[in-house]
Amino acid sequence: MGKIICCGLGPGDPELMSVRAAREVRNAKHVAYFRKKGRPGYARRIVEGLLAEGACEYPMEYPLTTEIASSEGEYLYRLGEFYDEWAERLARLAENDDVVVLCEGDPYFYGSFMHLHTRLAGRAEIEVIAGIPGMAGCWNSVGLPIALGDDVMTVLMGTLSEGELVRRMGNSDALVVMKTGRNLAKVRRALATAGRLDEAWLIERGTMPGERVTRLADIEETDCPYFAIVLVHGQGRRMKAAE
Amino acid sequence: MGKIICCGLGPGDPELMSVRAAREVRNAKHVAYFRKKGRPGYARRIVEGLLAEGACEYPMEYPLTTEIASSEGEYLYRLGEFYDEWAERLARLAENDDVVVLCEGDPYFYGSFMHLHTRLAGRAEIEVIAGIPGMAGCWNSVGLPIALGDDVMTVLMGTLSEGELVRRMGNSDALVVMKTGRNLAKVRRALATAGRLDEAWLIERGTMPGERVTRLADIEETDCPYFAIVLVHGQGRRMKAAE
Repeated sequence: MGKIICCGLGPGDPELMSVRAAREVRNAKHVAYFRKKGRPGYARRIVEGLLAEGACEYPMEYPLTTEIASSEGEYLYRLGEFYDEWAERLARLAENDDVVVLCEGDPYFYGSFMHLHTRLAGRAEIEVIAGIPGMAGCWNSVGLPIALGDDVMTVLMGTLSEGELVRRMGNSDALVVMKTGRNLAKVRRALATAGRLDEAWLIERGTMPGERVTRLADIEETDCPYFAIVLVHGQGRRMKAAE
Repeated sequence: MGKIICCGLGPGDPELMSVRAAREVRNAKHVAYFRKKGRPGYARRIVEGLLAEGACEYPMEYPLTTEIASSEGEYLYRLGEFYDEWAERLARLAENDDVVVLCEGDPYFYGSFMHLHTRLAGRAEIEVIAGIPGMAGCWNSVGLPIALGDDVMTVLMGTLSEGELVRRMGNSDALVVMKTGRNLAKVRRALATAGRLDEAWLIERGTMPGERVTRLADIEETDCPYFAIVLVHGQGRRMKAAE
């Protein structure tokens, strides 16, 4: 009887994988990972060159994109089926052997693995290995502490409404904005309205090949960054040296 | 000419250290770490058994505690001197050799190393290796995703005023409360007022020996947890399966 081991791979640099995750990846017989159709997949790219010879790979390809689906309802339905099928397949594999599922970042922090996790609960033993979240790789790339002292840090998704973004950006010391992509123009406007645009950094492909770290205000409006996180650093509220 | 390498060690389990941090720790000739007087030190404990034979250790002992200082002003002054002295000493060591500074968690996320970082800037080459933040080790110990979908996550310090805690606890999906310790009673009251106490977990020594995961509401008022983080999990706001 095997188990399902979800390995958090960290932000992208394979050297930032944990010792334990790296060992599981190297020893894995069965390796599953999400990817978009026709793409190598972020998680798979991180382990390039690390998998054992003869390891069986299971690319879990998202069935369709929002652009193709005729409605959000259809999209979510198809996606639910997709997760059901893979949960079934992985559970059956785990009857005989361990199965490693690769996840970029930290699996419990906005990770897609959770859709399988809920479906696998009670059907297979599950082990989750923490990883360095993508945002931590990004603030490491900037080379400044994201938060200090009594700073309040808020993690926001670019998918939120502009009004909510403005409100939350205005009343937090440190900010992390994920799911930027198509929402970047809105995120940028919200930061400007909240008076935080000049402090904002855009980190694209943090810790990965092709990494780019720029001031968000310096990005051309037509520039469409990919896999990017926006950061605003805290200044160390009520900084007490000895916490 | 050496450099100063600040190694993020992750939440406590040595196996959760990054591959790169583990290598630097094993190869280090000079190893510095903060600790309270008379204590082994959290960071030092994580690397127990990993240091090379003959590695020189530099425990940087905090000069005094707030209890002993006659005033906060004196305390901060003494602490400033302490950081100045160690920055000077480490910079001199780095003239000939690499110096590894051990930091629990992620150095750029509320880490004490930052007090040396600012003092060392321009005097020595500095390299910072990201680590899994302590909070990520804690939510891994609970075994539930801390945030999903469009959840807003807020990181709060228990040192904030009760009013501010209540307000922020009430309007965020997922919550992380650090610097609990002596502030735990206040944190608990604030969660109750915000209607979130029943969802709150207390994680003590996350991923370390002696780890304890409990519902905060179940803790006796007289129970004084140590090195603890409080978590409230998000429920996946406007959950879209395919982000």
